[in-house]
Amino acid sequence: MLRTHTAGELRKSHVGQTVELCGWVDKYRDHAGIVFIDLRDRYGKTQIKFDLADNSEIQKQARSLRYEDVIKVTGEVIARPDGLSNAKLETGEIELRAITLEVLNKSLTPPYMLDGDLPNEELRLKYRFFDLRRAELQKAMILRHRLTKTVRDYFDENGFLEVETPMLGRSTPEGARDYLVPSRVHEGSFYALPQSPQIYKQILMVGGYDRYFQIARCFRDEDLRADRQPEFTQIDVEMSFVEMNDILTTIDGLVSTVFEKIRGVKLPTPLPRYSYREVMDKYGSDKPDLRFGMPIVDISDIAKESTFGVFKETVAAGGMIRGLTIKGGADKYSRKMLDQDLKAFVADFKAKGLAYFKVTDGKLDSSIAKFFDEAQQKAIIEKMEAENGDLLVYVADKYSVCCAALGALRNRIAKEQKLYDAHDFNCCWVIDFPLLNWNEDEKRWDAEHHPFCYPVKDDVELLETDPGKIRAQSYDLVCNGYEAASGSIRIHDPKVQQKVFDLLNIKQEEAERRFGFLLEALRYGAPPHGGIALGLDRWVMLMLGYDNIRDVIAFPKTQKASDMLTGAPAEVDAKQLRDLHIQLKPQS
Amino acid sequence: MLRTHTAGELRKSHVGQTVELCGWVDKYRDHAGIVFIDLRDRYGKTQIKFDLADNSEIQKQARSLRYEDVIKVTGEVIARPDGLSNAKLETGEIELRAITLEVLNKSLTPPYMLDGDLPNEELRLKYRFFDLRRAELQKAMILRHRLTKTVRDYFDENGFLEVETPMLGRSTPEGARDYLVPSRVHEGSFYALPQSPQIYKQILMVGGYDRYFQIARCFRDEDLRADRQPEFTQIDVEMSFVEMNDILTTIDGLVSTVFEKIRGVKLPTPLPRYSYREVMDKYGSDKPDLRFGMPIVDISDIAKESTFGVFKETVAAGGMIRGLTIKGGADKYSRKMLDQDLKAFVADFKAKGLAYFKVTDGKLDSSIAKFFDEAQQKAIIEKMEAENGDLLVYVADKYSVCCAALGALRNRIAKEQKLYDAHDFNCCWVIDFPLLNWNEDEKRWDAEHHPFCYPVKDDVELLETDPGKIRAQSYDLVCNGYEAASGSIRIHDPKVQQKVFDLLNIKQEEAERRFGFLLEALRYGAPPHGGIALGLDRWVMLMLGYDNIRDVIAFPKTQKASDMLTGAPAEVDAKQLRDLHIQLKPQS
Repeated sequence: MLRTHTAGELRKSHVGQTVELCGWVDKYRDHAGIVFIDLRDRYGKTQIKFDLADNSEIQKQARSLRYEDVIKVTGEVIARPDGLSNAKLETGEIELRAITLEVLNKSLTPPYMLDGDLPNEELRLKYRFFDLRRAELQKAMILRHRLTKTVRDYFDENGFLEVETPMLGRSTPEGARDYLVPSRVHEGSFYALPQSPQIYKQILMVGGYDRYFQIARCFRDEDLRADRQPEFTQIDVEMSFVEMNDILTTIDGLVSTVFEKIRGVKLPTPLPRYSYREVMDKYGSDKPDLRFGMPIVDISDIAKESTFGVFKETVAAGGMIRGLTIKGGADKYSRKMLDQDLKAFVADFKAKGLAYFKVTDGKLDSSIAKFFDEAQQKAIIEKMEAENGDLLVYVADKYSVCCAALGALRNRIAKEQKLYDAHDFNCCWVIDFPLLNWNEDEKRWDAEHHPFCYPVKDDVELLETDPGKIRAQSYDLVCNGYEAASGSIRIHDPKVQQKVFDLLNIKQEEAERRFGFLLEALRYGAPPHGGIALGLDRWVMLMLGYDNIRDVIAFPKTQKASDMLTGAPAEVDAKQLRDLHIQLKPQS
Repeated sequence: MLRTHTAGELRKSHVGQTVELCGWVDKYRDHAGIVFIDLRDRYGKTQIKFDLADNSEIQKQARSLRYEDVIKVTGEVIARPDGLSNAKLETGEIELRAITLEVLNKSLTPPYMLDGDLPNEELRLKYRFFDLRRAELQKAMILRHRLTKTVRDYFDENGFLEVETPMLGRSTPEGARDYLVPSRVHEGSFYALPQSPQIYKQILMVGGYDRYFQIARCFRDEDLRADRQPEFTQIDVEMSFVEMNDILTTIDGLVSTVFEKIRGVKLPTPLPRYSYREVMDKYGSDKPDLRFGMPIVDISDIAKESTFGVFKETVAAGGMIRGLTIKGGADKYSRKMLDQDLKAFVADFKAKGLAYFKVTDGKLDSSIAKFFDEAQQKAIIEKMEAENGDLLVYVADKYSVCCAALGALRNRIAKEQKLYDAHDFNCCWVIDFPLLNWNEDEKRWDAEHHPFCYPVKDDVELLETDPGKIRAQSYDLVCNGYEAASGSIRIHDPKVQQKVFDLLNIKQEEAERRFGFLLEALRYGAPPHGGIALGLDRWVMLMLGYDNIRDVIAFPKTQKASDMLTGAPAEVDAKQLRDLHIQLKPQS
């Protein structure tokens, strides 16, 4: 090695030793005729002292150094004088008196300062080779490594095998979002990059592998939201001879191990489990943020007896009146904010309006309070668990609109009112999802998760009679309001699988063409099995408290799916396309 | 869990316990009115006994079982009678007396028996979900998991970070072998799947990550040899502030740890290091199999003094006479085998003939022996370290043909004569490769490894004067005659990098277009760095002594790059192609 120690390693105990360090010029000070340089590497920083009294030649050399030059210094470790130690640096009690200096490589003037004001993200992505030196990114990459190592250790200790599944696969049911790869050998044919290893891991269970995991790259070609990437990584798990509880318990163990080892946080397990219906009713979302309370409360039964036409008519038409109690909110949200800003906010979720009351002197106060008699006001205040100074807000609409609007409003208000600490973690399970969703546009059933979820056993007979009522043996792990994992018990009975395909209007011919090999596998002794997948990128973000997914990926892509560093995607040679038997479609 | 134990777990100490097992019906015997079934899972096999005396109903049920049905059995662990224990099974001292039997899933009649005669590989690949139950494949997947876990533990303990690099990248210098992925968002542009993370890992070094590793999927679209796959996995490593010796020492540690943990074999380290020139001279190959000796010996100096025209003329024309001593080979290779079979074998490597002698009574014996006088015969026997009964074979040609023909012949003869044990392992380093190879067809220099290898420091000045003489700071790890790893110290100086590009006739414009971001990165403080990549699939094969790469990959592809299980690659919907702005080229 060109060095004997790293820049984060030297302590008082090294004083007197002659050592070699390598790294980047991080800081530069010329002070009372002495040049000080902070030498930086991945492990820390060490102050180097170039003293004229020691060696005038080397001090001259040091004066020619510039930010981000790569140097090697041989020197003697000396204690800093009393009172001059730097508590901010782990090496702050010592410094290195330079004996020799070698410039290993020069740097052009950096495009920006690593710890100064940052330029726009696009520029930073272009200079990723430089931006990766920023402390935030290094912290993220190191934590990501530690996290995946902890995950692998956990699964290994619990008898799981990591098995690699192919990247060059076959186009799937959600084919529209597949990345395709033209085949050179098979003219006119294409591979697809996997949206998940779903079918392969089920095949591994049929093959008897019993406990599988993989930290797997997945791909989805969709228009990107801020927190999505065209390629992402998931912690993929499958187990045989299990019921739902076995998988939840296994993942409880994983999550608590990871939180303890990575963040030193002890999460009580088992993590709480709530039904889909319960969290939709109470929080308006299947991804409830439970770092705070503020449940949704239904006052339909009181409101329908009032004289307020909007409420009465809504309930009469089968809708409902639901709302939130914003503790101490009466003074915080002005009438203007409520009538304009918050109303527009819920309108995005199709709510036609936002009704509200302030609670004052044990009564409701607002322009519509007059439609509620004293007893009704009291009943509302009681049901909402409200006190003087609270603000009550309501949406009057059908169930799905109440959920969407109030679920989102609840999150917004909690953030605005700082109802939780950004360092809090709250994880829970949501179970008993519906198996199917009615797609009103296309008049057909869609799979809520995917077509391989097993219905809850008691509900299997509903496949024939009332598909909308069928609950799936599926489960989401929700952390701080994000879906952190999602899984299900799979169908291992080929007849049940065929019925679900039928319900989803996946015709037998199509099912055979697309999943024929899975159906065939189920016919040759498939064990009962189930699994789950956790989004790794999301987990790293949660652990770090970051809100930009690109800060936890070494080489991320923009929302336009471009790599600013390499310029991918890019044009290719005509010959390459000819070899692949494809051509560009003439521009329209 | 549906079971309390696995099928490999029960011992005498469990006798008397009531347990639940799940698994597949492996064997079935009806013996003296008692039905015996071997229940199989990933962990082993347990004999289940269905005794009429215990329960006639369950015995009837058991009679209806077929091979590969999936069952759950509750039963009592009982000791096998004295003398009836089965030493072949780890559970052979006990059996399970069935109390209840549940059929979890039926199986169609299996396409073949797992431990019987195997059908052709194509059929087995189609039934991969079933074939994966074979002991050989399970052993391979389990060893592969253990190997990758050991590798990760080793790098983690040595301060390396595992960092994920992108799959959707940019087309590279070897673009012709890239798999391309059309972009939907950027019309007419393509991503390329990585042939290796080479450039990304160099960028990580520039970014200060210091010690990187990754178990990375790589892709190469080439016509497949028997031991290649279109997607393969490599253990990818890069280190900063190092010289060649540091990397070799690090990998010595990895290799010895893996051999010890996985195979219980202690390899002495440091592994021996040989120069490229040395192994070419001695073994005719840069991947010498050193499990056996049989070095190539040059007898040009003796042969040129003989009266044998072919030898004399070859040496006069600048060629050489080189050969092998096949110990005890005089009786084993007949004149016919030598004149036909072996001659044809070396002809594949462009050798025009194969001369030979048998050693008898301290003299040479063959049709050309008469051209050598007694002193010459004695000198040859001495130089070849030959004894009576040995066979000496020679190629008279230029250096490269001698190397290719005799290197291959040496391997063939060692295999035929069983000069090594198939369980032996021999690993060594080959270093000091040439940096460049003269491509006679295209009259240009090609990079021996890749364009980023740093020349040996003393040779840098030859870049201007005598490029063919430049040695690279590169190294291959060779194990049992296979290239198991390959790496180099990289160029961190942008000026040297530019010179190498110039030599390789990669024009500045092209270099900027293709590697502009790397050249740019080198200008902003790139540390000295180097790395290596180990082929994981090959390592697993070596550890298992397997000779089919498809037996160490869960879902391999055929030599035609097809997945027989899923049918990938396949045709896709016209709409998918439209969305990607491409169309199929009209068939010519």
